Amino acid sequence: MTQPIQAMPSHHQYTIDKEPYYQEAGDEITLYQAAYQSRIPMMLKGPTGCGKTRFIEHMAWRLGRPLITISCHEDMTASDLIGRYLLDANGTYWQDGPLTLAARIGAICYLDEVVEARQDTTVAIHSLTDYRRSLSLEKKGELLTAHPDFQLVISYNPGYQTLMKDLKTSTKQRFAALEFTYPDEETEMQIVCHETGIDQDTARRLIQIARHARNLVGHGLTEGISTRLLVYTAQLISQGIPAISACHMALVRPLSDDPDIRETLDATVSGCF
Amino acid sequence: MTQPIQAMPSHHQYTIDKEPYYQEAGDEITLYQAAYQSRIPMMLKGPTGCGKTRFIEHMAWRLGRPLITISCHEDMTASDLIGRYLLDANGTYWQDGPLTLAARIGAICYLDEVVEARQDTTVAIHSLTDYRRSLSLEKKGELLTAHPDFQLVISYNPGYQTLMKDLKTSTKQRFAALEFTYPDEETEMQIVCHETGIDQDTARRLIQIARHARNLVGHGLTEGISTRLLVYTAQLISQGIPAISACHMALVRPLSDDPDIRETLDATVSGCF
Amino acid sequence: MTQPIQAMPSHHQYTIDKEPYYQEAGDEITLYQAAYQSRIPMMLKGPTGCGKTRFIEHMAWRLGRPLITISCHEDMTASDLIGRYLLDANGTYWQDGPLTLAARIGAICYLDEVVEARQDTTVAIHSLTDYRRSLSLEKKGELLTAHPDFQLVISYNPGYQTLMKDLKTSTKQRFAALEFTYPDEETEMQIVCHETGIDQDTARRLIQIARHARNLVGHGLTEGISTRLLVYTAQLISQGIPAISACHMALVRPLSDDPDIRETLDATVSGCF
Amino acid sequence: MTQPIQAMPSHHQYTIDKEPYYQEAGDEITLYQAAYQSRIPMMLKGPTGCGKTRFIEHMAWRLGRPLITISCHEDMTASDLIGRYLLDANGTYWQDGPLTLAARIGAICYLDEVVEARQDTTVAIHSLTDYRRSLSLEKKGELLTAHPDFQLVISYNPGYQTLMKDLKTSTKQRFAALEFTYPDEETEMQIVCHETGIDQDTARRLIQIARHARNLVGHGLTEGISTRLLVYTAQLISQGIPAISACHMALVRPLSDDPDIRETLDATVSGCF
Amino acid sequence: MTQPIQAMPSHHQYTIDKEPYYQEAGDEITLYQAAYQSRIPMMLKGPTGCGKTRFIEHMAWRLGRPLITISCHEDMTASDLIGRYLLDANGTYWQDGPLTLAARIGAICYLDEVVEARQDTTVAIHSLTDYRRSLSLEKKGELLTAHPDFQLVISYNPGYQTLMKDLKTSTKQRFAALEFTYPDEETEMQIVCHETGIDQDTARRLIQIARHARNLVGHGLTEGISTRLLVYTAQLISQGIPAISACHMALVRPLSDDPDIRETLDATVSGCF
Amino acid sequence: MTQPIQAMPSHHQYTIDKEPYYQEAGDEITLYQAAYQSRIPMMLKGPTGCGKTRFIEHMAWRLGRPLITISCHEDMTASDLIGRYLLDANGTYWQDGPLTLAARIGAICYLDEVVEARQDTTVAIHSLTDYRRSLSLEKKGELLTAHPDFQLVISYNPGYQTLMKDLKTSTKQRFAALEFTYPDEETEMQIVCHETGIDQDTARRLIQIARHARNLVGHGLTEGISTRLLVYTAQLISQGIPAISACHMALVRPLSDDPDIRETLDATVSGCF
Repeated sequence: MTQPIQAMPSHHQYTIDKEPYYQEAGDEITLYQAAYQSRIPMMLKGPTGCGKTRFIEHMAWRLGRPLITISCHEDMTASDLIGRYLLDANGTYWQDGPLTLAARIGAICYLDEVVEARQDTTVAIHSLTDYRRSLSLEKKGELLTAHPDFQLVISYNPGYQTLMKDLKTSTKQRFAALEFTYPDEETEMQIVCHETGIDQDTARRLIQIARHARNLVGHGLTEGISTRLLVYTAQLISQGIPAISACHMALVRPLSDDPDIRETLDATVSGCF
Repeated sequence: MTQPIQAMPSHHQYTIDKEPYYQEAGDEITLYQAAYQSRIPMMLKGPTGCGKTRFIEHMAWRLGRPLITISCHEDMTASDLIGRYLLDANGTYWQDGPLTLAARIGAICYLDEVVEARQDTTVAIHSLTDYRRSLSLEKKGELLTAHPDFQLVISYNPGYQTLMKDLKTSTKQRFAALEFTYPDEETEMQIVCHETGIDQDTARRLIQIARHARNLVGHGLTEGISTRLLVYTAQLISQGIPAISACHMALVRPLSDDPDIRETLDATVSGCF
Repeated sequence: MTQPIQAMPSHHQYTIDKEPYYQEAGDEITLYQAAYQSRIPMMLKGPTGCGKTRFIEHMAWRLGRPLITISCHEDMTASDLIGRYLLDANGTYWQDGPLTLAARIGAICYLDEVVEARQDTTVAIHSLTDYRRSLSLEKKGELLTAHPDFQLVISYNPGYQTLMKDLKTSTKQRFAALEFTYPDEETEMQIVCHETGIDQDTARRLIQIARHARNLVGHGLTEGISTRLLVYTAQLISQGIPAISACHMALVRPLSDDPDIRETLDATVSGCF
Repeated sequence: MTQPIQAMPSHHQYTIDKEPYYQEAGDEITLYQAAYQSRIPMMLKGPTGCGKTRFIEHMAWRLGRPLITISCHEDMTASDLIGRYLLDANGTYWQDGPLTLAARIGAICYLDEVVEARQDTTVAIHSLTDYRRSLSLEKKGELLTAHPDFQLVISYNPGYQTLMKDLKTSTKQRFAALEFTYPDEETEMQIVCHETGIDQDTARRLIQIARHARNLVGHGLTEGISTRLLVYTAQLISQGIPAISACHMALVRPLSDDPDIRETLDATVSGCF
Repeated sequence: MTQPIQAMPSHHQYTIDKEPYYQEAGDEITLYQAAYQSRIPMMLKGPTGCGKTRFIEHMAWRLGRPLITISCHEDMTASDLIGRYLLDANGTYWQDGPLTLAARIGAICYLDEVVEARQDTTVAIHSLTDYRRSLSLEKKGELLTAHPDFQLVISYNPGYQTLMKDLKTSTKQRFAALEFTYPDEETEMQIVCHETGIDQDTARRLIQIARHARNLVGHGLTEGISTRLLVYTAQLISQGIPAISACHMALVRPLSDDPDIRETLDATVSGCF
Repeated sequence: MTQPIQAMPSHHQYTIDKEPYYQEAGDEITLYQAAYQSRIPMMLKGPTGCGKTRFIEHMAWRLGRPLITISCHEDMTASDLIGRYLLDANGTYWQDGPLTLAARIGAICYLDEVVEARQDTTVAIHSLTDYRRSLSLEKKGELLTAHPDFQLVISYNPGYQTLMKDLKTSTKQRFAALEFTYPDEETEMQIVCHETGIDQDTARRLIQIARHARNLVGHGLTEGISTRLLVYTAQLISQGIPAISACHMALVRPLSDDPDIRETLDATVSGCF
């Protein structure tokens, strides 16, 4: 069931030319490559801002595959994924949706936060994730067989699932899974320095604040401080903003309006700078 | 009421040219063939990933009938099934939906997970499932009599039904039913080896893990590990991934986020490899 | 208010050429004919699969009137019944819906399971069911007076009504009613033999099972086994399937997933064959 | 504020040529005429089938005004009342809805069961019911002043109102009201005889049953037997159906599925014939 | 921020040529004029039928400004207010909605019962009610600056607000407010006599009934009898209807179906005539 | 990640030519400029009418960037933001939505009250707020990379958030935040005098009333009196309206219908004038 990588049609805008910076945390690159060789559909699990999107961009670049990313939301219809008829001077013509396009050109199709999508969206991908690897364009009357290089990847944040909104088991059973979490201290320091040019000492202090906040998850905070917010803070410091102001602006204020949580975080900030 | 099999119009894309691999578990092939001879509408019951879709593809190939599969979901309308008017340079023209097409060309029409569909969808099939074998294309003003070879088949997962979402009795009473479950150990081993080329010993160990997990259904797991996930795991092992990593990635992580369940499953994995 | 039967315009597809087999149970044919002579709107009451649809097809054939059947469902709009504008190379044109067509050509219009329809559908029929016998095509600006031969018939399953979904009294008060139930043993045997060519002894055994199951209604079963399911079972037996397998497949499995009910029914099957 | 009756544009289909039979019960004709002279918007209150529709048809005939009737329902939009743009070979053109048409030609516009309509419908009529007597066709950019002969009439069944669905006080305050109820025994007998040609004795017996049933309202029956159902029964008797069968078919069966109520009504029927 | 009144483009249908009769109750005309000079957005508060609409028509006439009135309801969309594209032989063209038109020509735009509108409607007016005085026609890509004479006015009935349906504080904070209530006895008598030509004695008796009913508000009545209903009653009396019948028809019956309330009101009517 | 400011395409209507008056309260201008230099997405937090909109207009003017403001509401779709196909004599053509336009021309895009928007809107902005800075125009099949000068800014009123309606943490984590509150007494006096030309003494009295009302927030008032309402009051006083009438009309009446709150506020007004 392993397919050779074929010559790809031109959809250059989806090709990633420059290596996206990605700091590997474990053996996730090896595992993902093995899954891609068998075209096993993949599920990337983990909290917000821990690098899932960056990882899939990195893997698409590494595998030389175009990447089509779709941010899922509850108003997205199957037509938004699959395609629709549009009107033209000569009548209607068909336009592929991003999922159809990905299946046709052999791209990696990344459905971000798939649990937000309505059920028709998740059901639409079923036939692409089993041995059929086909997509029925019912409105067009076409049964599309996916390009041999096509692979489907979804992201999934277990912290968000509720009784009302979760993936059906019959959907979950169609994916192998990789789990992501916040990088370890050393890795995170390298990321912050690489992205902002800040000195290691300041970066370490910021990470110390983040690690403190991550311990508050479940005790008043829904999610910890992401690496992305650390990068924002470091950028503000690079622009000459005092570290404490930068932390308030980019680490504390966006995260919570609860006075107790804010006081705790403010104290941590003051303790670190 | 038995009709001869007639010459079929060309809709080659729905014809299955290569025999889909299917390992018979009981007398389901004989029973299905008898139902097809009388064109009795069929309901395939059973959990996710136990082979219902594979079975119907196999039967369509065996009977030499085209197969039109429709994945049902709650945003599917009767028009998605029956057809609609589209706009063209010369005005509107009618386009058959997949159900209409199947009735016209004498295909087997397979409505997958029919319970997900809205009521208008399930009501639309009523006149095709009694002695009338007709479909009213109300928007077109046509009363279509089904091709003598046409048969309607639905799938139904009893584990999913809730008070809010179940087939109406007046719909259920229109079908004869076949029940599917996970294959027995010997059969499942043959499937895994056939699909992945893995050795029998490794396959047996994987199946042992799956059988253990299937006993947890109702005690923290919604559904057992499907044969499909066993195939994924075997593929990863074939790619050189250590068996334990492969099991975590393709058997445990996709199924559950519950720490207790994971621990139990991880222990089973460690015990088998 | 009795109108003579006039020459009918050609809508041959709705004319029933061959007598539909119908076994009368009481004086329902006489009563219906009297109602038709006065064009009194009729309501056919009774459980699923007891012959309401067959009866109205028989009466339409007997009265020589075309029959237009509409399966109601909760996504059906008044436009689906009455008609709509469609687009064409020369602009929009009006297309009659099935109710309008029936009123225009003098057909019997049969609204199957009318209680499933949305309120706008049931309100749309009001002016056709009182002394006005007219239908306002508001979108077209036409006030259509029904053809003298037109009659409106609805079906209604009292077992399905709930507080949320019932006919309004102001709708019920527009119909006279006939009640249907399962045929008596002798009649049902004749039907099964006539439809499948099976011997009388086997037919009697099947009916015995059905009568047993019908006693379970309200004690775990929503509805009894319909005559239609008996016909399926007899057809499978005619194809050479052992009687017990045929009963499981067409009488027991479609009806219930409850283990106790199944055991009871399975025991009845074993006792009869 | 009294306007002279002007020459009316041709919309002959809405003109009532033959006097609709109406048996006056009190001084409702005089009261209505006075209201019409001042063009006061009217609300006709009362239960189903007691003659509100017949009354307004009679008054329209008596005043020589065309009548445009609109059956309200919860899927009716303001556009259904006011009008919309349609597409044509030369582009879009405006088509008046029935309310706009009535305001333009000076018809009586009768909104039947107005409480079923959505709020946008009831708000749309506000400016036609105060001193402005105008209708804003917002989509067309036209402010239409009603023809001097135009009057708005609504029907309202107090028995149907619930907390969720009632006219807003700001709507009620725009109408004067007339109340209707079932006719007295003598009047009802005249109606039944006039409409069906049945003898007075049989008519009296039927009315006796009806009066008995009307006493059950609130004790198991939602509404009493309407005069319309009495007419149906008498028609069936005229066709030769035995009186008891006719009563079961047209008086008892349509009204209730409750065994106790049925038994009570059946006993009344047996006592009268 | 005070703008001179400029020459107005021709939209004569919105200009009020004849002085609408309005009896001032306090200093509301002076206060409104001062607000208009500064173009402060205004909110008119008060119960149904106490003259808010009449007041704004009077003020528009007095200020020589066209008036565009929009009756709000919960199915009104932002497009209904702002405008939309329509199709034509030459393609789509833009048509201003009534709010856009008012902003363009410098009219007073009156949103009647604004609390009924959906949130998108109320948000759409925000940028017209602060120092920006602009309206973003997002679909057209135009940022319209309001004509210097444009003013926005809304009406608001505090008795109707519920937890589910109230103006957001961020909307309320954009308006200055004038409160309206029923006119005092002398003023109301002048209005009734002026509108109907009835004698002062009869008018006083009618007002006595109304004042009695207004005391019942909150004790079984949602709202009191409006001046409009008094005018209806006086008109019926002018047509020769006896005063008691006229009161029943236009004051009591429309207001309530509660037997106790009716008895109380009927007694008051009998006491006054 | 700091980009040079490039030559901007002509979209002059979004350019702010005249300096919008803004009285700085702290170091918010410096902090915002630093964030803009790194193109960090910004969240402006604070209650209604405290100057968030004025601030962003001032900053757009100061940075010489066009500003595209979008008032969010719960009926806004992703298409309203991103763009849609429109019909033309030559068929459909694409029209950028305001978000797409802002990303294309390098404007600051300000989403006002973003929490009111549906989830598809907030998800649509995700890819513009991380290192990708891209927007997928799925319907057009274009992956737009934002202009280097583009920045996304949202406003957020913490007092409005409820369990049902709050920004997802995965959205919040994409912004740095600035907090706004009412200006201090001296600043507010300067604003009121600058905007209305009123004398300082009167301005101080108005501000005293406002500060009193702001203390009632949480004790019967949802939000305090905004600076905007103070400006309205001062304008009415400038027009010759007595101060007490002006306060009632523009400070008290719009804010509350609660008699106790009104009495307290009225007493404050009387005490100040």
